[in-house]
Amino acid sequence: MARADEGLAFLLQFHNIAWFENGVVRILDRRVYPGVVRFVECKTYGEVKQAIADMVTQSAGPYVAAGMGMALAAYECRGRTAAEQLALLSGASEALSHARPTTVQRMMRITADCYAAGKKAIEEGRDACQAIFDHTIAVNETRYRRIEGTARHLVSLFPSRGTVLTQCFGETIVGQMLKVAQLENKRLSVVCAETRPYFQGARLTASVANDMGAHTTVITDNMAAWYMKTEHVDVFTSAADVICMDGHVVNKVGTLQLAILAKHFGLPYFVTGSPDWAHPDEKSVEIEMREPEFPLQAMGVRTAAQGVHGWYPSFDVTPPELVSAVVTDRGIFAPYDLHRWFDREDAREETDGYFVPPC
Amino acid sequence: MARADEGLAFLLQFHNIAWFENGVVRILDRRVYPGVVRFVECKTYGEVKQAIADMVTQSAGPYVAAGMGMALAAYECRGRTAAEQLALLSGASEALSHARPTTVQRMMRITADCYAAGKKAIEEGRDACQAIFDHTIAVNETRYRRIEGTARHLVSLFPSRGTVLTQCFGETIVGQMLKVAQLENKRLSVVCAETRPYFQGARLTASVANDMGAHTTVITDNMAAWYMKTEHVDVFTSAADVICMDGHVVNKVGTLQLAILAKHFGLPYFVTGSPDWAHPDEKSVEIEMREPEFPLQAMGVRTAAQGVHGWYPSFDVTPPELVSAVVTDRGIFAPYDLHRWFDREDAREETDGYFVPPC
Repeated sequence: MARADEGLAFLLQFHNIAWFENGVVRILDRRVYPGVVRFVECKTYGEVKQAIADMVTQSAGPYVAAGMGMALAAYECRGRTAAEQLALLSGASEALSHARPTTVQRMMRITADCYAAGKKAIEEGRDACQAIFDHTIAVNETRYRRIEGTARHLVSLFPSRGTVLTQCFGETIVGQMLKVAQLENKRLSVVCAETRPYFQGARLTASVANDMGAHTTVITDNMAAWYMKTEHVDVFTSAADVICMDGHVVNKVGTLQLAILAKHFGLPYFVTGSPDWAHPDEKSVEIEMREPEFPLQAMGVRTAAQGVHGWYPSFDVTPPELVSAVVTDRGIFAPYDLHRWFDREDAREETDGYFVPPC
Repeated sequence: MARADEGLAFLLQFHNIAWFENGVVRILDRRVYPGVVRFVECKTYGEVKQAIADMVTQSAGPYVAAGMGMALAAYECRGRTAAEQLALLSGASEALSHARPTTVQRMMRITADCYAAGKKAIEEGRDACQAIFDHTIAVNETRYRRIEGTARHLVSLFPSRGTVLTQCFGETIVGQMLKVAQLENKRLSVVCAETRPYFQGARLTASVANDMGAHTTVITDNMAAWYMKTEHVDVFTSAADVICMDGHVVNKVGTLQLAILAKHFGLPYFVTGSPDWAHPDEKSVEIEMREPEFPLQAMGVRTAAQGVHGWYPSFDVTPPELVSAVVTDRGIFAPYDLHRWFDREDAREETDGYFVPPC
């Protein structure tokens, strides 16, 4: 099958994100990449749900995995009655969308669309599994095109030679940003905050940037201010898990403080993504609290003594006054003016139908 | 020998910092504590220098180790002529004081005083090794008394129940702060930023606070802003490697950004220590750049892919406008008014003679 992902870094190729084939969904285990290149193999959609909950894949990965998980669900119930198949697909949609609490609404749109594609196929006597698989690939190709558009707007804000500070794993946007920069003869260096406790910045973003040929530096999360002050950063940019309609940005914990530091040092913070009609404000987003002991280790080795407590919010919320601009496939918006993103007549529908976060 | 360190946490007892006995200096390896409790044994002062350079011990530890290293140097040349002993002690003073570039001047004062104590003993026909050992213990007892005084002033700034955010390993001051707080019926919780790349906050400060009975929480370095915003912090406090006369604070990298965040959220930042006449301003301090690859691992496990670059400044500099107060054994000073610390007639001499950083 022709894929839109050729020429991209290893981590951004569909095959290496999550892939359904012969009754198995293989998901690259980003928890250990690049130290170990390993795939988690799921033989039921329940295992896919668990893999998402266990953060085998992150950033946009869970959305691809959920689509592939829906294809697997259709495979699991192949040959049963239409009613049985629809019941199982409905259960799978419910289960997969609830794998992680912060993204339930976005995931639901993915899995509901997969359900619809499967239902249509069943009604028309086609293979529901193939239909859902094809739908998932099509959604991701659309997503890649939209992210390329986003990258063009983002790169237009960069100098011809510059340094971009990133946070966590901005997945597709980082690769597209570097691809567009190369096409436009802009030479970018990338500085990745390592992003504890999972080190997505050090392990994943830095791998993508390095694969794409950019000079890539990893700093620990506590070096950002000193790096901004004594080295050189032109722009801080991150993707977002949710961009609320009032300009609040929900993203991996650590984003808020980088935005505060950027403001302190007079640097712009550009968030990429698209505003989310389902989230009018930060109160509408549940911030996932994960296992508090997890940050008391690093790369599997315990750091703190027994008896010491941990704390682990997955995300934080950056208020609009710290966001210089929201960069989307439809252009560059003030964080206070996001309703305009929906002004096109078909915008709401397109968003609902093909929504995948561009992070 | 009676010691001033009884009742303190394991990490703060002289025996567990650095100790000379029978021709060996044993230094607790704080790089692996508390996961592993291991001592590095040095049989020459050159090995002590190397241990300090390798960061076997940090915070005030190197100063104790340097004193014990000078005792070891005297032991190494026992029985030789006075001239030979003085030559070797002079060489040891030079070597030990230069173990780490940022602290050369402070270390020189320690080792020069040890040299003087040894010289006097040699001239008077006493054992130079014992004299330097006794001197080192005496300096540290003085230091502990001064830090207790500092702690009293610091705790006077705290509410009766409060949460204190720390950075890196504030060694003695954290233990003394909690001891004084207990005596004054103030109940403190301690939140430790884990302090990458060495995790001194997670491994060392949290161990001391936990040993002292305080409710202790470790957060990763990128969680500080979100913790300040959504949980509760009353005060950010840190020790300092150097407090310049113009109020610039040189401390473990990460301090600057916590100070920026504290200001953003309206929290005070209290730095403990004493101003350093030898450092009029930040330009007089060399910021040690360490092995750039080091931050590309965590607890010994590589994080980033090959080809990715690292960056590793040991310290950063916080400007006085971000420092709410400098808390010393002689009281609480504005960062712009540090000359007053030296106003007492004997102050310069005392500082020069007994200077050990209270961190």
